[in-house]
Amino acid sequence: MLFFTQCFGAVLDLIHLRFQHYKAKRVFSAAGQLVCVVNPTHSLKYAPTRCAVAQTSAEQGSLPPCHHHEAVHDPQLVPCTCPLFSCPWEGHLEVVVSHLRQTHRINILQGAEIVFLATDMHLPAPTDWIIMHSCLGHQFLLVLRKQEKYEGHPQFFATMMLIGTPTQADNFTYRLELNRNQRRLKWEATPRSVLECVDSVISDGDCLVLNTSLAQLFSDNGSLAIGIAITTSKVHNGEAEM
Amino acid sequence: MLFFTQCFGAVLDLIHLRFQHYKAKRVFSAAGQLVCVVNPTHSLKYAPTRCAVAQTSAEQGSLPPCHHHEAVHDPQLVPCTCPLFSCPWEGHLEVVVSHLRQTHRINILQGAEIVFLATDMHLPAPTDWIIMHSCLGHQFLLVLRKQEKYEGHPQFFATMMLIGTPTQADNFTYRLELNRNQRRLKWEATPRSVLECVDSVISDGDCLVLNTSLAQLFSDNGSLAIGIAITTSKVHNGEAEM
Repeated sequence: MLFFTQCFGAVLDLIHLRFQHYKAKRVFSAAGQLVCVVNPTHSLKYAPTRCAVAQTSAEQGSLPPCHHHEAVHDPQLVPCTCPLFSCPWEGHLEVVVSHLRQTHRINILQGAEIVFLATDMHLPAPTDWIIMHSCLGHQFLLVLRKQEKYEGHPQFFATMMLIGTPTQADNFTYRLELNRNQRRLKWEATPRSVLECVDSVISDGDCLVLNTSLAQLFSDNGSLAIGIAITTSKVHNGEAEM
Repeated sequence: MLFFTQCFGAVLDLIHLRFQHYKAKRVFSAAGQLVCVVNPTHSLKYAPTRCAVAQTSAEQGSLPPCHHHEAVHDPQLVPCTCPLFSCPWEGHLEVVVSHLRQTHRINILQGAEIVFLATDMHLPAPTDWIIMHSCLGHQFLLVLRKQEKYEGHPQFFATMMLIGTPTQADNFTYRLELNRNQRRLKWEATPRSVLECVDSVISDGDCLVLNTSLAQLFSDNGSLAIGIAITTSKVHNGEAEM
């Protein structure tokens, strides 16, 4: 009996995923875009107290406590870059991707342009939606985080980090695009390296930031579709803009 | 002596404006873009208590108290749409522009693409930067507002309203673009009609919203340059996007 109940649950889940996938495809109708349904994870690493400490020290101009590369003594080794869990793992940069896949079960997607469909946006903060994106010979970590920077006012923060060095990261530009209800919001920036911790990028606010009201305007039935594109940045002169 | 001091002050102001204009031109280097330096106005109409009332009623699903068109009994007359001052003026929609120019001294600019250079972003909330923009045979009102929706955390809200009816507004799309330090943020939407009050658009959060940290990243020496473009929207099917 339990077996049948579980089977029925699994079938319902599949139908639900299929439906969400179809919805995302309808919104992002451009041919060739891969839609990836990303379920939320309630962050076990990230607690409000830790956030407050990181934010306070960032405001004071000192480095937040999560700047991993400050703590690593062997320059060849980097700590685990998973934003979800505190993990004692250390290893070479080249094996971070396989560690994230195998130990933290973070999915990886191929393709220059993908659609990240974050489900259950209503879940309380802190919540993370995470995926890896393989593109142009490199791997990127996309993090969408719901967080209460100001108590009682959750916001959404989205950023893309290169699983590589800051020098390698400077060669790329990433774009996050929201598009719904005759509104469009685009954020373009150079990705940060995972050696700079995602917590500090979010506490600095140097990413796509959405209030709850804007997130609702762009959401469809509790799911937020973010179009992602990565390109190589050809021009490297800091001020040559527009 | 006083005369010479005043003359010297005026010359300094001119040099400062010229310098800001030059800086904006350097950032927005595309040919043909008109740069307009917009000075802030401390809003006399908009007080924190009024904001709290509007926000509370918006959250409760009722219309905010500033929905002018609810209060107008003669359908031919509209109230003053100036976001800065409480003004008893009423008149036909066709003469709103001349009322805003003559009574409230709001400047008007011509051109399909302009750059709005808001100065003195550090000034405390509530502060407004306002200009009118004449384009494609219509006049638009651009409002940038610094406001503390959450006490102690000022945010910037930018929106564009058509000085016309909601039906006329549906024919246009406006784009606001920030571009600096290898970061780009674009907001595209259908303008609202000035018959819907700007306060309600901002309390709904249906506009470009910037945290202080993001505003600082995009600012240059206390001034924020916003590229503005208006186009006619050809497709009118609500869900045909991307």
